[in-house]
Amino acid sequence: MIKDLIIKNRSYRRFFQEVSIDRRTLTELVDLARLSASGANLQPLKYILSCDPQKNALIFPHLAWAGYLKDWPGPSEGEKPAAYIIILIDTQIRDSVGCDHGIAAQSILLGATERGLGGCILGSIQREALRKALDIASRYEIPLVLALGKPSEKVVIETVDQTGDIKYWRDAEGTHHVPKRALDDIIIG
Amino acid sequence: MIKDLIIKNRSYRRFFQEVSIDRRTLTELVDLARLSASGANLQPLKYILSCDPQKNALIFPHLAWAGYLKDWPGPSEGEKPAAYIIILIDTQIRDSVGCDHGIAAQSILLGATERGLGGCILGSIQREALRKALDIASRYEIPLVLALGKPSEKVVIETVDQTGDIKYWRDAEGTHHVPKRALDDIIIG
Repeated sequence: MIKDLIIKNRSYRRFFQEVSIDRRTLTELVDLARLSASGANLQPLKYILSCDPQKNALIFPHLAWAGYLKDWPGPSEGEKPAAYIIILIDTQIRDSVGCDHGIAAQSILLGATERGLGGCILGSIQREALRKALDIASRYEIPLVLALGKPSEKVVIETVDQTGDIKYWRDAEGTHHVPKRALDDIIIG
Repeated sequence: MIKDLIIKNRSYRRFFQEVSIDRRTLTELVDLARLSASGANLQPLKYILSCDPQKNALIFPHLAWAGYLKDWPGPSEGEKPAAYIIILIDTQIRDSVGCDHGIAAQSILLGATERGLGGCILGSIQREALRKALDIASRYEIPLVLALGKPSEKVVIETVDQTGDIKYWRDAEGTHHVPKRALDDIIIG
């Protein structure tokens, strides 16, 4: 059931870093994005794959993690992502991307989840520093970085309570709690 | 396999209009979006559901279909969508939405595909006319309308040829052909 896969597909930020992901797996995941919808079928998205420690180390410093966890600067050595898929917009094809990158990210992460992996969509990126580190041509914008790995943390969904607070939080055992709005609060009329 | 579902999840624009979709099904599909990722977990998306002919008739005139099929104005009576999910951005929560609507649309359409339904993400919308027709408050933006139904057309994926033309087209038998860029053309480096 797709619902089971969607529920299992949480945003994971800590991984078993030693569990590597090969390039073939990343390519198969990008293929899921390739086969997904694109506005006017223009397909402006391109992808950079990274699954070796050297390249990963060029990417990691330019990402910001879990804005609501003020005491946590991000995954430490040993729990960092094993791989990344950097999503690019090829501005020679289209300069505005609509929601193609969201569609692509969801397809990729559902595929990763099915494989027993997990990941996180990162939009808080030091874009010009990352561009320099990987020598990404100026024709490409960098809307998202997908961090991937074998998750080492537990993430649970809860319902937003009467305070309306949607901030995720981590308990003393390290479980990550994510409040989601109730169905009644998001369906209008 | 998620890949099978993604391949089956084509953009369908003609339906068996008489095959209705009930409100419960639409609610279950929105639940898939609810359980999906949202930037900073802010969850600014709200949804309007429509599955009765009267409400559908208020929505349909404000949608544009298949820009590349110049001779085809859109589905005719009998092949129109049986239901719609209108995706809104609640600007009281967030005024820019990132790619949440793409993530939500993909979750909903994968859920629809699993149920033997199909649909199309429509971004070409007469927004102010639709707002008026459904009395949608000004706090909501309308990024996308998802048209849903039991597909009555065949859609096939092809690979973009050397001309680079990505325009979809319909053959004499009514089969809809969608050229997708090859993996080698979308993975950089």
